[in-house]
Amino acid sequence: MNISTVSKPHEQLAATLAGEMAAVNELIQTRMASEHAPRIPEVTAHLVSAGGKRLRPMLTLAAARLCGYQGEHHLRLAATVEFIHTATLLHDDVVDESAQRRGRPTANLLWDNKSSVLVGDYLFSRSFQLMVETGSLQVLDILANASATIAEGEVLQMTAATDLKTDESIYLQVVRGKTAALFSAATQVGGVIADASDEQVQALYDYGDALGIAFQIADDLLDYQGDSKATGKNVGDDFRERKLTLPVIKAVAQATADERAFWERTIEKGRQEEGDLEHAMALMAKYGTLDATRDDANGWAAKAKAALDALPDHEIRTMLRDLADYVVSRLN
Amino acid sequence: MNISTVSKPHEQLAATLAGEMAAVNELIQTRMASEHAPRIPEVTAHLVSAGGKRLRPMLTLAAARLCGYQGEHHLRLAATVEFIHTATLLHDDVVDESAQRRGRPTANLLWDNKSSVLVGDYLFSRSFQLMVETGSLQVLDILANASATIAEGEVLQMTAATDLKTDESIYLQVVRGKTAALFSAATQVGGVIADASDEQVQALYDYGDALGIAFQIADDLLDYQGDSKATGKNVGDDFRERKLTLPVIKAVAQATADERAFWERTIEKGRQEEGDLEHAMALMAKYGTLDATRDDANGWAAKAKAALDALPDHEIRTMLRDLADYVVSRLN
Repeated sequence: MNISTVSKPHEQLAATLAGEMAAVNELIQTRMASEHAPRIPEVTAHLVSAGGKRLRPMLTLAAARLCGYQGEHHLRLAATVEFIHTATLLHDDVVDESAQRRGRPTANLLWDNKSSVLVGDYLFSRSFQLMVETGSLQVLDILANASATIAEGEVLQMTAATDLKTDESIYLQVVRGKTAALFSAATQVGGVIADASDEQVQALYDYGDALGIAFQIADDLLDYQGDSKATGKNVGDDFRERKLTLPVIKAVAQATADERAFWERTIEKGRQEEGDLEHAMALMAKYGTLDATRDDANGWAAKAKAALDALPDHEIRTMLRDLADYVVSRLN
Repeated sequence: MNISTVSKPHEQLAATLAGEMAAVNELIQTRMASEHAPRIPEVTAHLVSAGGKRLRPMLTLAAARLCGYQGEHHLRLAATVEFIHTATLLHDDVVDESAQRRGRPTANLLWDNKSSVLVGDYLFSRSFQLMVETGSLQVLDILANASATIAEGEVLQMTAATDLKTDESIYLQVVRGKTAALFSAATQVGGVIADASDEQVQALYDYGDALGIAFQIADDLLDYQGDSKATGKNVGDDFRERKLTLPVIKAVAQATADERAFWERTIEKGRQEEGDLEHAMALMAKYGTLDATRDDANGWAAKAKAALDALPDHEIRTMLRDLADYVVSRLN
């Protein structure tokens, strides 16, 4: 890939870090293999060959390079982060009984819940071995805390998603668990392994955290304003699945008694009728919550960019800045 | 509990280690709590209050005490081991769609698969935080490897359980994953945290490994010769669920062509008819495989006891020796 001919920042990062990404992919293949349990590569190859942008491991490599790291442990950490992400997807597939993931049938339809749970556990254990090999207790501490935030956020989401008491601060916790905790851990461990200063490690955390939040808010907003061809989702899927996301939470916060009864019926009780999505969209328009949600996403992207000021001036830093713009560019 | 009035070795251990076990229980309660996700204690309290012998954390405390440990990290490791065990049970419940666990309805019937998977993940992440707090990379290495063995064993079991190619060495791998890996990690980390010699740490590993294998073989044998009132299982459950365990593996290895066809039909294809269990029992009697399996269990219990010779002479060592006898005493 020629850097000058690609325009998207994650493609620029992929081109700049191509050699290291190849080494990470190699490591992922090697460590995923199990001579004893052939079912494992069957299940995981499916997810891995489906691709995805490998954004999270790229963030680890980018952070390490930005902080001048010369060793090889960042490759292990990048593979660690991708394994945790893949394991989370496998467990989410069980949980949501979702029929599609990355445009292919999910593992739990092709195989079964059993394989999804156990192979997810296997990938977690592999990621654990990889991170221990770095010999850095600080890295282990960060990843242990990120794991707890992820797991707690997932459990919280189960009850919070259909509960009208869910406010913006609970939404933010769920978003950190679902997305931002792994982004921020990915960037932070890249700095830690490079022995960056505390200030730089904090800046990397702040960048990953804000980038992840911007990314997830944008995703939730696109559910209501997106082009279904571009997003692969139908407008209003979250409403139909009774998932409280930011645009609705903002509308609920300002609801009249009648409007609140509407949200109770459609989200809390899940008794939806013809025309409900249109009414929900009208209520969001009434209070301008799609615009307000877009402002929030842009605000988090701006925070992500500001965090980068504490890091060295470097082409990677420019790409990370562009990446923050990119995740919200679909909204603007 | 007065030590002199109790006879079972795990009760003696519980009495001797009562103060530390209380501290471990306290730690488990504290670390299980989540202010953000009230669903978590709901699911786990159910498992925790159901009790169980807390054998695994007791092994960690026993190993640490036996090696003269004076600090407090062994409490964290004992809680770690119990969290891993509980998480594994939660994930097993999803997997097996088993209706009973410790004599109560399983979490996934009271709640749902979703809660079992995610709360299991939460407990894994909590165990990960606890072990990182010990600051011992050697402990982390042992627990990472044990986690991988457990996960690989569980995946292996999915395919191996109904495959007549499963031989005794594959069975042993499954048993290590299912039971022995956490037993051996539990004893080993107790020694490591106490800064025991390499020889002693190896002896603790050997003890836990052999004890876990003896325990699981005994369990599998009791499925065919047990008293259903004592075991809480019906004779032949494993046969009906098409699980290849050691008594059947030994019979398959010696089967005539006709007998092999019988095993193929009943185990591999799962087409079972009236009278099949009785025929299976007759084939096991023909080759004496229940006796041979009992010999194996006794052999592993003897190995466990022999491993203790490398450890200090101490009342705890006597109890661990008695425990090895106890796990096979139900068979003899």
